[in-house]
Amino acid sequence: MVPASKTIFFTLLLHIFFLIPSHQYHPLDSLTPSEFTQIQSIVTKAYPKSTYNLTFQYVGLKEPTKQTVLSWLRNETTTNPPRQAFVVARIDHQTHEIIVDLSLQGITSKKTYNGYGYPLLTGEEQEDANKLASTYPLFVASISKRGLKLEEVVCGSFTVGWFGEERKNKRIVKMMCYYLDGTLNADMRPIEGITMTVDLDEMKIIQFRDRIIVPVPKSDGTEYRESKLKPPFRPSLKRTTVVQPDGPSFNIVGSQIRWADWEFHLSFDARAGMIISVASIYDPEKQQSRQVLYKGHVSELFVPYMDLTEEWYYRSFFDVGEYGYGLSSLPLEPLRDCPPNAVFMDAYFAKNDGMPLKMPNVFCIFERYAGDVMWRHTEATDPEKLIREVRPEVSLVVRTVSTVGNYDYINDWEFKQSGSIKVTVGLTGMLEVRGTNYTHKDQIEEDVYGTLIAENTIGVRHDHFLTYRLDLDVDGDANSFVKSKLRTVRVNDHGSPRKSYWTVDRETARTESAARIKLGSEPVDLLFVNPNKKTKMGNLIGYRLVPYGVVGPLLSDDDYPQIRAAFTNYNAWVTAYNISEKWAGGLYADQSRGDDTLSVWSKRNRSIENKDIVLWYTLGFHHVPCQEDFPVMPTFNGGFELRPSNFFESNPVLKVVPPS
Amino acid sequence: MVPASKTIFFTLLLHIFFLIPSHQYHPLDSLTPSEFTQIQSIVTKAYPKSTYNLTFQYVGLKEPTKQTVLSWLRNETTTNPPRQAFVVARIDHQTHEIIVDLSLQGITSKKTYNGYGYPLLTGEEQEDANKLASTYPLFVASISKRGLKLEEVVCGSFTVGWFGEERKNKRIVKMMCYYLDGTLNADMRPIEGITMTVDLDEMKIIQFRDRIIVPVPKSDGTEYRESKLKPPFRPSLKRTTVVQPDGPSFNIVGSQIRWADWEFHLSFDARAGMIISVASIYDPEKQQSRQVLYKGHVSELFVPYMDLTEEWYYRSFFDVGEYGYGLSSLPLEPLRDCPPNAVFMDAYFAKNDGMPLKMPNVFCIFERYAGDVMWRHTEATDPEKLIREVRPEVSLVVRTVSTVGNYDYINDWEFKQSGSIKVTVGLTGMLEVRGTNYTHKDQIEEDVYGTLIAENTIGVRHDHFLTYRLDLDVDGDANSFVKSKLRTVRVNDHGSPRKSYWTVDRETARTESAARIKLGSEPVDLLFVNPNKKTKMGNLIGYRLVPYGVVGPLLSDDDYPQIRAAFTNYNAWVTAYNISEKWAGGLYADQSRGDDTLSVWSKRNRSIENKDIVLWYTLGFHHVPCQEDFPVMPTFNGGFELRPSNFFESNPVLKVVPPS
Repeated sequence: MVPASKTIFFTLLLHIFFLIPSHQYHPLDSLTPSEFTQIQSIVTKAYPKSTYNLTFQYVGLKEPTKQTVLSWLRNETTTNPPRQAFVVARIDHQTHEIIVDLSLQGITSKKTYNGYGYPLLTGEEQEDANKLASTYPLFVASISKRGLKLEEVVCGSFTVGWFGEERKNKRIVKMMCYYLDGTLNADMRPIEGITMTVDLDEMKIIQFRDRIIVPVPKSDGTEYRESKLKPPFRPSLKRTTVVQPDGPSFNIVGSQIRWADWEFHLSFDARAGMIISVASIYDPEKQQSRQVLYKGHVSELFVPYMDLTEEWYYRSFFDVGEYGYGLSSLPLEPLRDCPPNAVFMDAYFAKNDGMPLKMPNVFCIFERYAGDVMWRHTEATDPEKLIREVRPEVSLVVRTVSTVGNYDYINDWEFKQSGSIKVTVGLTGMLEVRGTNYTHKDQIEEDVYGTLIAENTIGVRHDHFLTYRLDLDVDGDANSFVKSKLRTVRVNDHGSPRKSYWTVDRETARTESAARIKLGSEPVDLLFVNPNKKTKMGNLIGYRLVPYGVVGPLLSDDDYPQIRAAFTNYNAWVTAYNISEKWAGGLYADQSRGDDTLSVWSKRNRSIENKDIVLWYTLGFHHVPCQEDFPVMPTFNGGFELRPSNFFESNPVLKVVPPS
Repeated sequence: MVPASKTIFFTLLLHIFFLIPSHQYHPLDSLTPSEFTQIQSIVTKAYPKSTYNLTFQYVGLKEPTKQTVLSWLRNETTTNPPRQAFVVARIDHQTHEIIVDLSLQGITSKKTYNGYGYPLLTGEEQEDANKLASTYPLFVASISKRGLKLEEVVCGSFTVGWFGEERKNKRIVKMMCYYLDGTLNADMRPIEGITMTVDLDEMKIIQFRDRIIVPVPKSDGTEYRESKLKPPFRPSLKRTTVVQPDGPSFNIVGSQIRWADWEFHLSFDARAGMIISVASIYDPEKQQSRQVLYKGHVSELFVPYMDLTEEWYYRSFFDVGEYGYGLSSLPLEPLRDCPPNAVFMDAYFAKNDGMPLKMPNVFCIFERYAGDVMWRHTEATDPEKLIREVRPEVSLVVRTVSTVGNYDYINDWEFKQSGSIKVTVGLTGMLEVRGTNYTHKDQIEEDVYGTLIAENTIGVRHDHFLTYRLDLDVDGDANSFVKSKLRTVRVNDHGSPRKSYWTVDRETARTESAARIKLGSEPVDLLFVNPNKKTKMGNLIGYRLVPYGVVGPLLSDDDYPQIRAAFTNYNAWVTAYNISEKWAGGLYADQSRGDDTLSVWSKRNRSIENKDIVLWYTLGFHHVPCQEDFPVMPTFNGGFELRPSNFFESNPVLKVVPPS
């Protein structure tokens, strides 16, 4: 729940906002606090509290069409596109989709959604649910039976997935509880065996089961707060800091960021978190800015656990569609989450009641200098005169951290002077652990679905699959997807002493079915090209996807979590651009049945040649926990790069002047 | 050739060195300048110049046995192990292996090598060879015929490989020439069609062929020196620098480096370049330093080109064994190759005449702070009191750059506080390009083996395979290699709503044949464990190999370059420790026939369970050039990580104190 004091603060603040003209308007700007308030007011007027039970599950910008945005960008003097919002509300226990037009100050569309799946959970309803246990007599008795102190118990709400039930379930979550009592790290102290089911609409516990008593792992060794840890500490390193005596080289106007040759728009969405839009790079040779990425963000994050026990089998989370990657984005800590040269930006999202909540310092933006080299060469032709040219690498990073319950995902979008966009995610935070009787591996004679990482503590095996929606518009919006396959050629020409070499077969994917790629088995470069433009040399202008490591799903295709997450069946997909196809796991991910996923859309097998197309890339992690992950995990990184490939006529950073 | 002035300088310097007692002795220290001089003196005394034609092809430390080193390390007061050197010399056109004992001041072993293959090429003989062309009448005529200026021609020596010849070739190289005339970037201006063969022993051209005249690519756009480039330059970024007001946190005594909980030895070898030895990490819980890596270095670097034309088919270089990764390590540029907080170290190797040559600033060592996060968590259990703990990542990097002709390889060994060792290589420098008549892609109707990256310039497709020798000694030298395979389990228990999950099958490789791994097709974690030690929880103590991307060879197994480079057939191999098995492509890589490679040693199928074993890991790149690679390539990175896996009882960086 948001404390009252914060609400008052926002109400005051909004009045000030109203008075400020929107100098720095951009049609892709996130909804402003005043817009959230207007939307709230318009919707609550249509569905007054006296008559309706109304909660706002999602409020976000309804983005203008790409053509509208691009034509606005081409000529900034035209009238601004109308501002619209997309609202998903629960009204009298039904899901409603409402479009609010802020210019017209009214609702332009509303419909009830009756299909499978439910909208995002709000923070407030989870908090309300989590409080139910402490007054639920059966639970109180179970806690007492275990000899635990009720006041040290905290609970969490877990989405339930779908396991073949024919009848549509109510909007429910399962609730599991944890024990503090001497630690902040309740994640490491599960109270195993007790599962409660909460009906979120009724906001009450509708099912209770206490199956088995398992020791709660002890608190020793679980604490991670500096202030609570006991010596000996590790020897402290001397200070290392980044200094920019003349300030940063980037420029932020509104949500538009310019740095080096890059220009892009940064926005925030309760569901997607960070969104990078209309990223373009200035080409000094062509003397113009050229489009690269119309829009990029995390579309879904699928986290299935590999534990069949009754309290665990269902855990197969859709962190973006169920909990909100944006809702889970928490303030960054200056000097620690980001270097001293970072600047921070706030973000806003709608609370349960529709009013805006400010999340300060959600973004940090900084120039990254890691001591790396952008390009170099030593020319040793004349050994008496070594000639050396070196250009250090400085890049621009935009970061958010989404803490989805136990896990912290550090999201970096890094722009390189060379034209590359490098996307990385760092996984840290807490494991999801299961309580167990075991205190030593030698006692274990069954599959415990994980690693005994501490006494009575199993770090359960699981995966993370992050699916990115990458609406690349490489030098224009008509693009083709080319699989550039490396193929061994057997040499039969007896004139050559060689018996083999490899060549490249380029295959343009005509339709969506040809653009589903499982990486790893065959060497293939994935290219987005503009078939209407060529370099002076005649090469197709393109960008290449460079994965850092390849991971695919291991669940059976017909297993329910995998049916829902069929968008992870391939590492890469390309679809025809459709403004409504944003969420790889479906708009209503909670309890979804896989009927509105990327995998289903792709079955339409639309033409994708020389069209406005979208790349979906899934990067994954199989996590076999180890003791080093206890009680908090050292960061593990994954990512990919979008790298220019015959986009420029030559190395675009040749003429970067090295720092003096 | 080394200029006379440098030689005099070294002679003077060495006298000073003789007077300094070796306070900071370590049995793995690289040979010192005075040792090189002593070795030179001992060998030239045995083979006097008046009688013998003697050149030093390789001079390096003959390392003491592991047991000797470890027992010395355990008790530093015992007598120092004898210092010995391994010398490979060409004496009267034969390869000789000589062992010099510096304590005994004499040769303890000498033998002639009559097998296939030749030793490392020295810089001096390449320079001598490269000069031959300018006075070779046929070449002079060919240059004149092309209308080129002889004084603007520079030549390079290319190792010739082996293509099934039954008779052993002489010690030859092929020589190709390039054109300067208005650029320093001769690599971009090949004089195609002319191939000369040089007999290195006779130091004369023994074969000349001028097959075809092809336009020399023009110099426009090839220059990369800041001083020679013409505006417009890219907008300059404001200064970003790293500051350590209290100095660095590492400590270097001799060649021993201590930083955070790490301690390791750094040395230099003409062939391997950087060598990391006896790396161990202090375990605060056990209150002792624990072994991780006895020795790690690049063992071979295989670079085959995919071009069948007469002047190109043979190009399948073994950069480590033919040119020397150490010999190719050139001085780093302060502030550009390494950040301002770096310290530099010099290295020495023997010249052709056996005398030491100082290569200043070959290593840089610095603490890397890239703005990353070592671990973090935000605890949002109580939304009114967000608790956030973040530890920034600071690591230690040791860097060299090897410029093997056109390519620059940036080699980083990065030590993390968490116990990880991250090894990366960045590829930059110049492409190897072929001259062509084509000026536009539309003219091309054949496989030109590459990309037209500029007029008359084909960037030829090729691979890079770096094979690392990683003598891991995880918590002791008796280790086992465990393949931890992730396997989908179909659930037949109708009690579970799930249909599948994945589990882990651990398989200890008993012998070398079970330890050859092609990565990519199946999910598998590769672990080095100490089967004699367990954590308190009972888990095997280990380190895990984490590849960043997987690339395998595409040449046919029976193709000659691939027979010689059969060590790249698998991404990972494990062999029984053998002090003489260091060079994956064989001790004599030049013109080798694949009879002394990792692949051959592994066929002995030795037992590797609970033994002293060695991991060989190959990381690769398939390079399809693009126009951005012209005229100098933006850095492209690859690497891997050795990450503790149940090596510690818990997160070893939990108690790292964050910087204030």
